[in-house]
Amino acid sequence: MKQCMETEKLHRRIKKIIGQLNAIDRMIDDETIPCENVLMQVNAAKSALHSVGKVILEGHLKHCVIDGIQHGDAEKTVEEFAKAIDHFSRLS
Amino acid sequence: MKQCMETEKLHRRIKKIIGQLNAIDRMIDDETIPCENVLMQVNAAKSALHSVGKVILEGHLKHCVIDGIQHGDAEKTVEEFAKAIDHFSRLS
Amino acid sequence: MKQCMETEKLHRRIKKIIGQLNAIDRMIDDETIPCENVLMQVNAAKSALHSVGKVILEGHLKHCVIDGIQHGDAEKTVEEFAKAIDHFSRLS
Amino acid sequence: MKQCMETEKLHRRIKKIIGQLNAIDRMIDDETIPCENVLMQVNAAKSALHSVGKVILEGHLKHCVIDGIQHGDAEKTVEEFAKAIDHFSRLS
Repeated sequence: MKQCMETEKLHRRIKKIIGQLNAIDRMIDDETIPCENVLMQVNAAKSALHSVGKVILEGHLKHCVIDGIQHGDAEKTVEEFAKAIDHFSRLS
Repeated sequence: MKQCMETEKLHRRIKKIIGQLNAIDRMIDDETIPCENVLMQVNAAKSALHSVGKVILEGHLKHCVIDGIQHGDAEKTVEEFAKAIDHFSRLS
Repeated sequence: MKQCMETEKLHRRIKKIIGQLNAIDRMIDDETIPCENVLMQVNAAKSALHSVGKVILEGHLKHCVIDGIQHGDAEKTVEEFAKAIDHFSRLS
Repeated sequence: MKQCMETEKLHRRIKKIIGQLNAIDRMIDDETIPCENVLMQVNAAKSALHSVGKVILEGHLKHCVIDGIQHGDAEKTVEEFAKAIDHFSRLS
């Protein structure tokens, strides 16, 4: 198990997002549901996934990045963390 | 089936994202995988979900919005579509 | 003057963002101001600029897009509008 | 002058964005310029401003955050940095 990850919280959230996606998958075939509602559910799942990324990034910061700065190559550690933040903050 | 949705494309993409999430769920417990790699997979799934939203929004525009403007209440149609774009473009 | 733009509102907002940027430009040299505060001002200006984009996109939808659908080439109009939404929703 | 900021690079970029905003301000009144083009310029300025935020965040990480972790309160330092990343990655 990863030390730096809040694994239980992450598993719970990912399972929930998979549930949201299965619900969206069914909504797509249901012609009584307006498109706007399907889109709102997609946005909600996207935000939930962004939050999962945030939890991972923070766990990484609080464990691996602190550790790398205190006991490893500080420069390389922050260089790589800066890249991770950059990817996290964009929709590529 | 919804006229305005490319249902097959959407089902295929959603299934793929669910597959990505199941892979991420396993990666979280695997201590040989660096956090950055998990985060990259989360970002990839988030971008894929954004694209699903885009496909829905475009289908809605090309069918429901055109139809609403040509044969319904044009003002109300664009008012609601503007709201949908707003939600789509933010991580709330 | 563009019919489709709320020009007064837009001029006012753009002037305000330029004011925010001039303030940020001064903050950068002031060592009594924490980085986090500078960053918060940058984020505020970025959000304000996103809102300017939203006002333009909505004006375009309510005038040019409705007009194009009712009296022009509906397909080409929505094709181009879909592209505009796509750019608007990303940080490229 | 702030030690942690690449002040020259930041001043140059902010001046450039102010120039972009002044150009947008003029485009708004020019009815020969299509809305889409104005919107593209707004998106470009928004991306440039996001990059300014990125430069500040990285400078902060490479100086203040490393320093806080090595010589100050590591926990508080990363707690605050996590908040800064969170704001940076959203359009609120």
